[in-house]
Amino acid sequence: MQANTLVLDMSDLALVPKSELDRVRDAADIDPDARLTLLADMCRLNTLVAIKRAGSGHLGSSFSALDIFVHLLYHELNVAELGFEHPERDVFFSSKGHDVPGLYAVLYGLGVIPQEQLLRLRRLGGLDGHPDVGTPGIEATSGSLGMGISKGRGIAWAKWSLGLGGRVVVMTGDGELQEGQNWEALQAAAHERLGTLWVVIDRNELQSDKLTEEIVALGDLEEKLRAFGWDVRSCDGHDHEALREAFAAFREVEERPNALIARTVKGKGVSFMEHSAALAEGGGYYRWHAGAPGDDDFERARDELVARIGVQLQELGLGALEPLTVAGRQDEAAYSLEAEPESGAGAPLQKVTHEYVVEAYGDALIELAQANDRLVVLDADLASDCRIRAFELAFPDRFVECGIAEQDMVSTAAGLARHGFLPVVNSFASFLASRANEQIYNQASEGSKVVYALHYAGLIPAGPGKSHQSIRDVSLLGALPNMTIVQPGNSEETGALLRWAVEEAEGDVAIRLAIGPSPRRIELPAGYEPAIGWGVVLREGEDAVLLAYGPVLLHEALVTAERLSHDGIGLRVVNMPWLNRVDPDWLAVEIAPYPHVLVLDDHSPVGALGDAVRRTLVGHEVTVYGVEGWPACGTPEEALRFHELDGASLAGRIAALLGVRAPRS
Amino acid sequence: MQANTLVLDMSDLALVPKSELDRVRDAADIDPDARLTLLADMCRLNTLVAIKRAGSGHLGSSFSALDIFVHLLYHELNVAELGFEHPERDVFFSSKGHDVPGLYAVLYGLGVIPQEQLLRLRRLGGLDGHPDVGTPGIEATSGSLGMGISKGRGIAWAKWSLGLGGRVVVMTGDGELQEGQNWEALQAAAHERLGTLWVVIDRNELQSDKLTEEIVALGDLEEKLRAFGWDVRSCDGHDHEALREAFAAFREVEERPNALIARTVKGKGVSFMEHSAALAEGGGYYRWHAGAPGDDDFERARDELVARIGVQLQELGLGALEPLTVAGRQDEAAYSLEAEPESGAGAPLQKVTHEYVVEAYGDALIELAQANDRLVVLDADLASDCRIRAFELAFPDRFVECGIAEQDMVSTAAGLARHGFLPVVNSFASFLASRANEQIYNQASEGSKVVYALHYAGLIPAGPGKSHQSIRDVSLLGALPNMTIVQPGNSEETGALLRWAVEEAEGDVAIRLAIGPSPRRIELPAGYEPAIGWGVVLREGEDAVLLAYGPVLLHEALVTAERLSHDGIGLRVVNMPWLNRVDPDWLAVEIAPYPHVLVLDDHSPVGALGDAVRRTLVGHEVTVYGVEGWPACGTPEEALRFHELDGASLAGRIAALLGVRAPRS
Repeated sequence: MQANTLVLDMSDLALVPKSELDRVRDAADIDPDARLTLLADMCRLNTLVAIKRAGSGHLGSSFSALDIFVHLLYHELNVAELGFEHPERDVFFSSKGHDVPGLYAVLYGLGVIPQEQLLRLRRLGGLDGHPDVGTPGIEATSGSLGMGISKGRGIAWAKWSLGLGGRVVVMTGDGELQEGQNWEALQAAAHERLGTLWVVIDRNELQSDKLTEEIVALGDLEEKLRAFGWDVRSCDGHDHEALREAFAAFREVEERPNALIARTVKGKGVSFMEHSAALAEGGGYYRWHAGAPGDDDFERARDELVARIGVQLQELGLGALEPLTVAGRQDEAAYSLEAEPESGAGAPLQKVTHEYVVEAYGDALIELAQANDRLVVLDADLASDCRIRAFELAFPDRFVECGIAEQDMVSTAAGLARHGFLPVVNSFASFLASRANEQIYNQASEGSKVVYALHYAGLIPAGPGKSHQSIRDVSLLGALPNMTIVQPGNSEETGALLRWAVEEAEGDVAIRLAIGPSPRRIELPAGYEPAIGWGVVLREGEDAVLLAYGPVLLHEALVTAERLSHDGIGLRVVNMPWLNRVDPDWLAVEIAPYPHVLVLDDHSPVGALGDAVRRTLVGHEVTVYGVEGWPACGTPEEALRFHELDGASLAGRIAALLGVRAPRS
Repeated sequence: MQANTLVLDMSDLALVPKSELDRVRDAADIDPDARLTLLADMCRLNTLVAIKRAGSGHLGSSFSALDIFVHLLYHELNVAELGFEHPERDVFFSSKGHDVPGLYAVLYGLGVIPQEQLLRLRRLGGLDGHPDVGTPGIEATSGSLGMGISKGRGIAWAKWSLGLGGRVVVMTGDGELQEGQNWEALQAAAHERLGTLWVVIDRNELQSDKLTEEIVALGDLEEKLRAFGWDVRSCDGHDHEALREAFAAFREVEERPNALIARTVKGKGVSFMEHSAALAEGGGYYRWHAGAPGDDDFERARDELVARIGVQLQELGLGALEPLTVAGRQDEAAYSLEAEPESGAGAPLQKVTHEYVVEAYGDALIELAQANDRLVVLDADLASDCRIRAFELAFPDRFVECGIAEQDMVSTAAGLARHGFLPVVNSFASFLASRANEQIYNQASEGSKVVYALHYAGLIPAGPGKSHQSIRDVSLLGALPNMTIVQPGNSEETGALLRWAVEEAEGDVAIRLAIGPSPRRIELPAGYEPAIGWGVVLREGEDAVLLAYGPVLLHEALVTAERLSHDGIGLRVVNMPWLNRVDPDWLAVEIAPYPHVLVLDDHSPVGALGDAVRRTLVGHEVTVYGVEGWPACGTPEEALRFHELDGASLAGRIAALLGVRAPRS
């Protein structure tokens, strides 16, 4: 294999077999800390391969955490020995969760996760992009930041109450500590004197792509934790002897919970991913937080790890590394599609355009800010994914960085809005609409105006899993008296709706945005301008009308219509960007006449456009297709098919509803 | 007036006139600190009267904060001079908000709030029970705890950005600091070096009715705040010389935000309300946090304040206190009805029973816990209002106090639920369903089971105002795949639904509970047992069917039916306790046959039972009556009438819908 080849085949994406990890684990008479260091590097290699196959995932954070994962699970804790069902087991999980590819690699080495699953990271039936308790060895569903210490507190209380042995060890990020819930949990655990609760902070000094001290400084973290009543130690999180000593000391502390600040290096183990080198190369931005590396970077990283593993095996007298095997099948990998290094969202399998409505959003924001010097943008450490980095650089004095603290961000926006500014608040929909919900209600009740940009709205991309997929946000904001919720279907509509929100809307506006590429260009009629409560026809048809919104499901709606037309079924497709405002007159003229009114919600069928249409279209049967149950993790095609929201499935469901033969697939 | 009389008339509820406050403010050659002390006592007396007239309100916290309010607004800040619209004004507000009766009294003294409004605390068109920016002199809507420092941060940023003068001073409670958002805001403000942001902590050592150090200890608060990068001072919050010195020192600090820990006495100024005396008398519980005092306690407190004011006037050579005037009219006071000292909820004007469904909830919880040793109860410092104090005393080892930290409470419950316990999580619906929404989603996604008790659900009581009235909670939980939401109509149904939730339900259950007394006993058929998705008929009628739930709106529904029957309109009234599950078969048989299907939601018309019925009752016209817009503050009668949800209004609306003459009122 040449390092400079840019065409990989499956054999390039093979894993270090479990047998090799076992060989190292079981080798007699070798230095225990060197053993753990080597196991960590083998797991790094498998993490790299899994993420490359998935087309996305979090390398930097997995690598900074890996020595700690290995140290805890191979050495310090009893769970590998007792098993993950044993009531007296030590419970370990990571609160930040995006380091889970690294944890999966360790669980694979321990035989907890089968090989077939590790080959299917972020695939349907494989391993979720963030931890889920449905996966063997995963003790808590996480990925929504800041909940872990509270859960650990509950588990430690349960063990105390039942008289069960076992410690509870929670890993957190450092940036994650900006989330206020951590401090609620820290004070409560100290109040309860939960000495069996340990927190290990992966202090890699970086959040998504910038230094924690630049985003919102943690300051003297040891002092803060001590002030909150915790026993605190610090050490090198890649030094197994130091970790060994720190945990030994924790075992002596009974009356206070214990926190270890583990100083780590984001991207540890691959020279050009380690954070000082990577920050220098990236001009102050760290590019290996999320997303799979390109082919050449993958091979450089892989070769480096393979080489170092070989050297360590040699030094320990364990011979050479077995050839990597376990390639699996092409259809088990998503890697072959262009990855999106900037986005934690991952790359879709389906054929896509180069349009990102979120890019249009970022461009429109700058344009609107040039005309309105009271427009300010608030960010919760997702500036790259939300495409507001360009705004930050263009208007540094009108960019308010809040860190990973959505509640503080929204109430800060409320203060700004009452004092002459128009705040545009950014985060992922799943975090912003839910975690800051009471703050949004409070702001709205003051009668000021704020624009909420709900990024990564809807089912797709499905790789990150249910912590990130937002299928409830419309229902979470829909009962606010003065909130209008919209979602644009293409770049032009994104600009037009944002302009309406900023320049014309009376009250609050929530604008839902797809984060991935548009599956197709949605063509809107020439001269189309959004009008409150009005949809726009994309395709004519006689037999039924289907309302949809957003680039992802508008594409599926059009595929559905195309398929149904082969069988003589005419489906009218309407783009309806107003999710909680439906104009009754428009409805009466454009929709009511159809015998079958159908709504396609990129959301739970509860609380979104379908319900809004039912409220307005009195006495008419309305059929709603939405995301039922928990959102599936996988490629876009897998998730859409799983929920029967892809064009083929919808064509069949609609044909059945209309009582005609399902179309040929 | 005899101190021992137990029958008051309006003259007993008169205010210290503004002219008297002006006389003290303008008196020449008197000690400035003695002046402020006297003004604070005069405001205490007016606070006491306003709360007595209202029938509810927060005395203890108003009294502990009053010296600080007076010091800031009469002396330290420029806002009284510049006015509340001036861009260069110092901005002051209280984040805890329940101390607002004290602040209103000061604003009355300053001529900002007219006398007629102070006479109408917690009345429609009067003063809200918690701060609202619609009231003159109120800079931020609060009452939902923990948002104030973030808002102050936003305001300070706005002043900095616009080059405007003026400090931003935010008062917080001490118990309030358990809310994690505070620590998000503290770290962000320190990061931004907002030296113009000052926080004054009313360190009265008590939260609702117990010591902060007992609920969740704050520990060394100075150390915590310093660790978060703030400049910190402490002083006696009733000593104006000490306050003067502290604020003078703050003016010298430019590069760091400033925090003052003001040591205060809850209930300060009335001997038997001051916390050490009150705690001793209350056996460790403080009874003056919320609710109006009874007649005799009112008179004792009033006489004490009147006497001390007289002495101070004498000592300052200002003669005697003018007779109290400004009584206002009987119909401006709600006091004449029995107050609910245990509840912040206030007393209803309408004729009521002695039934509280929340009491039945507390009793049932104990009964169920005796049969199930894995049932644990979690509290967020509302044990008295939620009627779980008895549980705490009966099962201290199965009671988890979380303090004012709803997010930590829910994720702690998630940990408990995964490790063998059935957690029953308690708080007010407006806080629990919104602030902890993402945590509830995360817990539910783990497939464990938790029962969420949503206390104080719905529009009534309306005295506390929109921060406490919960009209969105069903919409906030309705899109969760495995959440069943119920609300019982009487005590028996409360016990039955809670038993179902604990012993039979498969997934999560949210049980909405009215906090006030039931307006009437809702009689259910003999042998009635709740069945999932099934309602129960309370009254027969031929012309239309009305679905309702909960004691408050079931009463209004029955009043509606009684009124309509006078005019020959037969309204069938159905109690439907299942708010997001409607059995289609039951609907087809019991509801669909009616020409007019009506739903009465104790909630926004968006996202509750009305929408659930529409989803199931396909193609049928459904008319939904719910709380439109922002929930009104006032007595129950005022609020119900304002929203046209009282029996008389509903009868008229339904008669109009049916196209018949509205009934006689």
